[in-house]
Amino acid sequence: MKINIGRLMKEVEFYGQYGSVSGEGITRPSFSAADYEVRAIFINQLKEMGLQVHVDPIANIWGKLACEREDAATIVIGSHLDTVPNGGKFDGALGVLVAKEIIQTLLENNVLLQHNLEIVSFTAEEPNDFNLSTMGSRALTGKLTYSQLMNTSDSNGRMLHEAVKKAGGDLTKLSEITRENLAAYFELHIEQGKRLERQNLSIGIVDKIVGIYRDQIQVHGEANHSGTTMMVDRIDALTAACEMVLAIENITRSFNTDAVATVGKLDVYPNAANIIPGRVDFTLEIRSSCKEERRAIKDAIYKEFEKISESRKINIISNNILDQEECTFDADIVRYLQETADSLEIPYTTFASMAGHDATHVAGIAKTAMIFVKSIDGKSHSPEELSLAEDIEKAANTLLEAILMADKKL
Amino acid sequence: MKINIGRLMKEVEFYGQYGSVSGEGITRPSFSAADYEVRAIFINQLKEMGLQVHVDPIANIWGKLACEREDAATIVIGSHLDTVPNGGKFDGALGVLVAKEIIQTLLENNVLLQHNLEIVSFTAEEPNDFNLSTMGSRALTGKLTYSQLMNTSDSNGRMLHEAVKKAGGDLTKLSEITRENLAAYFELHIEQGKRLERQNLSIGIVDKIVGIYRDQIQVHGEANHSGTTMMVDRIDALTAACEMVLAIENITRSFNTDAVATVGKLDVYPNAANIIPGRVDFTLEIRSSCKEERRAIKDAIYKEFEKISESRKINIISNNILDQEECTFDADIVRYLQETADSLEIPYTTFASMAGHDATHVAGIAKTAMIFVKSIDGKSHSPEELSLAEDIEKAANTLLEAILMADKKL
Repeated sequence: MKINIGRLMKEVEFYGQYGSVSGEGITRPSFSAADYEVRAIFINQLKEMGLQVHVDPIANIWGKLACEREDAATIVIGSHLDTVPNGGKFDGALGVLVAKEIIQTLLENNVLLQHNLEIVSFTAEEPNDFNLSTMGSRALTGKLTYSQLMNTSDSNGRMLHEAVKKAGGDLTKLSEITRENLAAYFELHIEQGKRLERQNLSIGIVDKIVGIYRDQIQVHGEANHSGTTMMVDRIDALTAACEMVLAIENITRSFNTDAVATVGKLDVYPNAANIIPGRVDFTLEIRSSCKEERRAIKDAIYKEFEKISESRKINIISNNILDQEECTFDADIVRYLQETADSLEIPYTTFASMAGHDATHVAGIAKTAMIFVKSIDGKSHSPEELSLAEDIEKAANTLLEAILMADKKL
Repeated sequence: MKINIGRLMKEVEFYGQYGSVSGEGITRPSFSAADYEVRAIFINQLKEMGLQVHVDPIANIWGKLACEREDAATIVIGSHLDTVPNGGKFDGALGVLVAKEIIQTLLENNVLLQHNLEIVSFTAEEPNDFNLSTMGSRALTGKLTYSQLMNTSDSNGRMLHEAVKKAGGDLTKLSEITRENLAAYFELHIEQGKRLERQNLSIGIVDKIVGIYRDQIQVHGEANHSGTTMMVDRIDALTAACEMVLAIENITRSFNTDAVATVGKLDVYPNAANIIPGRVDFTLEIRSSCKEERRAIKDAIYKEFEKISESRKINIISNNILDQEECTFDADIVRYLQETADSLEIPYTTFASMAGHDATHVAGIAKTAMIFVKSIDGKSHSPEELSLAEDIEKAANTLLEAILMADKKL
């Protein structure tokens, strides 16, 4: 039994039309006109497949293929249909459409599982104007409170509860969102990086989501006249900050692992051509699937910061603004995916996801793992986002067989 | 004959009250309430001294001590009375008050020169809300046009011509501003740097104003996800820009002269903690009194930029936005100051001013030079700005004697 890759790729193209602007990719954030269109289409398709459709209080869309056993637990497959502005057609949608293709394949082959099989499309996984990403999975797992959600509005003052209502949800019933008796959650997603491409692999099995550590750092020097202050007399906050940024890069590279550290935001004060910068603020972000490694990188960086602080006579003030633990996926689900790939003779690697996903949150209420498909050139959140049919086919068939294995073993 | 240092320092303190806020220095930009107050006081003092007071079309204040010769040329001494926000009591005001003290000393000693002696306080030397610094000296020397000035307003929409009128000027008569028959212009100013302090000198004789070269530089990398993009896959515009900023610093230091180079303004795009910077824009400013040196520094910097561009695969786009030649002061006037300091046995150095001054512009219509007084700790444009009475006294007496020498020799 194999999925129909032709049909799947047609669906990817079909969904990719919604929110698409020629040359500028797809802009389909949750609660945009394009999102509402896609939701209606998706719900119709699920109904036509004979699934029991349910839109939950946060407007996650569920489609259930019930099994014959009474009180059977449920295996869930899904991802999200929203995109970032000027995104691509694979990030999110591919996971949802593979889930749909898998259920369709099972239906065509008259395979009935021992578990209920449910597809889910989560609301607002991507960063959005309501400032709540992975909104659907967080609401599902009790990580967003009623009052928080009821008081959320976007930059135009549009209330979230109204946007949700238009999508068929109902925030006033948030307490009823809880799902019990979930046996497993599988999510297929594009890698959004180059690790698979570099290893020439179609698929990766994801056993963890990285932890993220973020500090907000202030560098205090002395603002001064750019003409009258000789080079030797300067206490330049920017040149000091530049040494710090390069130290972060060098130290993190020297670990030679998948750990990454980034200075993404940096602001100079007073920021005028003829004034030596007196202060620079920047963010330091460290991602690694291992807490000890995050700490080791951070310690090495701050040791170097101390040297720079002494040699340049600047003051460094640092505040931790995020310290998110890694999420370890379920060993059984990871093993089902690995054993399936082995038996299908599809080479793979097992690694950590360097980005957050809905699966991070669902892992709190169900045995969870993810499967990644190779991204061409590592591009994502971009019109150039691309995954090839041959790689998608391997990932989808692995997922299909792994679900059958889970159905037997769980 | 010596100036009265006690009286001079009292005047410095007296003028320093206007625009002063306790602990926050002096805020007395041109056309502020404090500036109008100080203008009235200054004009009254000049009149009481018996000088012929004249407010010109741009509201520069002139006070003339006429000599007995018909059609005698005029020696001018002056500076400016305006300050930056939160500035000090010496930058500008000291030059005007020393000029006043010199004329007072000459009057007390019944010394009458062969030239007319005129004091000037220039309008709006400092950067200001009308976006025209050295406004008075530039208008005087024909560098600001009538239509440019008439159309200028501040950020509150206040028209410059109204502000000037309130100060006794009249922009409609701008064409009458021209001064002819100026024999010499002397300006005393605080150094605003640490060169004199480092050499343990009270005074510096200024024979040049540095040239200023500015480029606007864009660094183009690839914006990417801070988690999924491995360290080796990044084309980080910020880490590249940091190498460039440090190269600018290293190269300029290696010249081991008074040349300075500064990155004062730097902006990161998109500037988010979880996105690898795709673009960084920054300004490169090089100041040196020697055009060849500015070029040599610039060439060395861009040679290094090329290496960085290759090794980091970034694109660098550069636009020149300022290429201001150095201003060389009059050799005679410089020599009068040097010979006077020699005869008074006051040690000095002769160097370039690293900042622009009204003298830069006046040099176009009169034989000009400047004398600098040591700044304690190099501070200026700051409440901590300080020059000591003992240093000021030496500078003022040197200036007094140099004027007498100029009066004989010109």
